[in-house]
Amino acid sequence: MAANPKAVVLLSGGLDSTSTLAIAQHEGFEAHALTFRYGQRHAVEIEAAQKIAARMGAAQHIVVPIDLRLFGGSALTADLAVPKDRSLDEMGDGIPITYVPARNTIFLSFALAWAEVLQAQDIYLGVNVLDYSGYPDCRPEYIEAFEKMANLATKAGVEGALRLRIHTPLIRLTKAEIIRRGWELGVDYSLTISCYDPSPNGKACRRCDACLLRQKGFAENQLVDPSLD
Amino acid sequence: MAANPKAVVLLSGGLDSTSTLAIAQHEGFEAHALTFRYGQRHAVEIEAAQKIAARMGAAQHIVVPIDLRLFGGSALTADLAVPKDRSLDEMGDGIPITYVPARNTIFLSFALAWAEVLQAQDIYLGVNVLDYSGYPDCRPEYIEAFEKMANLATKAGVEGALRLRIHTPLIRLTKAEIIRRGWELGVDYSLTISCYDPSPNGKACRRCDACLLRQKGFAENQLVDPSLD
Repeated sequence: MAANPKAVVLLSGGLDSTSTLAIAQHEGFEAHALTFRYGQRHAVEIEAAQKIAARMGAAQHIVVPIDLRLFGGSALTADLAVPKDRSLDEMGDGIPITYVPARNTIFLSFALAWAEVLQAQDIYLGVNVLDYSGYPDCRPEYIEAFEKMANLATKAGVEGALRLRIHTPLIRLTKAEIIRRGWELGVDYSLTISCYDPSPNGKACRRCDACLLRQKGFAENQLVDPSLD
Repeated sequence: MAANPKAVVLLSGGLDSTSTLAIAQHEGFEAHALTFRYGQRHAVEIEAAQKIAARMGAAQHIVVPIDLRLFGGSALTADLAVPKDRSLDEMGDGIPITYVPARNTIFLSFALAWAEVLQAQDIYLGVNVLDYSGYPDCRPEYIEAFEKMANLATKAGVEGALRLRIHTPLIRLTKAEIIRRGWELGVDYSLTISCYDPSPNGKACRRCDACLLRQKGFAENQLVDPSLD
């Protein structure tokens, strides 16, 4: 019996990336989970990622420390207030201040390095454009451009040995559809945390954009969010 | 009098990146130098970069710690022997084991993040393809693909406020031409170090590919390498 092919899965500890991990495994990949400690104020999600990787049987889990605070520029890493109680219209209006400059580009670059070392040709990333369209580096045209660049960047790509693919299975799903898909695959959402501004003991604030979108997604499925118990 | 526009300059402390810094300044940019502490065995180049940034009047210098040893896979970061005493033919044969997976992609991603925070639209990178063609992420088609991706990745790019350019002024120069250009601009090459495998006190080994190419470049200009005094 041949071993499952390896894939690098970016795992933040949130709902989307955890659903993506379940999908990668369902699609037959041995998952190598990659998490970043990047100075985010919601570092509690790193502990969530560790539990999720262990519980879901990731083959390996690496937490990479990188300090994006060196550059500043985002409410997630600098000392700026996270917006609360916004309507969907307000969330959709422009690029939010929780945007972290070039974050997905940095994350995908590390995933690319690891994929090359593992001789994996698949990377999974849980971005989506519908519920939350404000991040430029969540759009399909960005992902395609990264994939093209990546295939020119690496020894494996140049030698024609591997063709790197970036899988974004959630990219056109609503939050409700993501939750339904993960629920079908048996994801334990009680392990996940989405909040941008959790309390020191790790409780979701229930008022930031991420909390509000998550609540809406569970409500539309007539499901109770088990992480809020 | 308008301030000079800002540029992020990737500065390793070697000959090429130091020449690139001089060119960026000569072309009218205020240089913001960016160096990585990535687990390289030749960490002495970081000290060189600090001296160079100070001496050449960089507006700012940030050293970013990132641990590429987490993934392994290169003689520069793992416990593999650096090749010595190779001929130019041997150096040109395939991708060397000193290649670090996705290194330039990771470095450029951080440069992109900083450029966005600085509202700079120029990044300088001292890659070149001629003397040393084995690295896939030093080729013009790779740089073009990165630039295209970068302009889709960022808030500034999406809003049309900035058009990011990656400058690679050395890309088609030989080592001898790079040294001549830097010499004309007054670069103090005694501050730079190119060696892949320096001694603990920071002396170049004079036998690795980087040392041999450097020696050849100075010799072709009938110049004495001041770093070997």
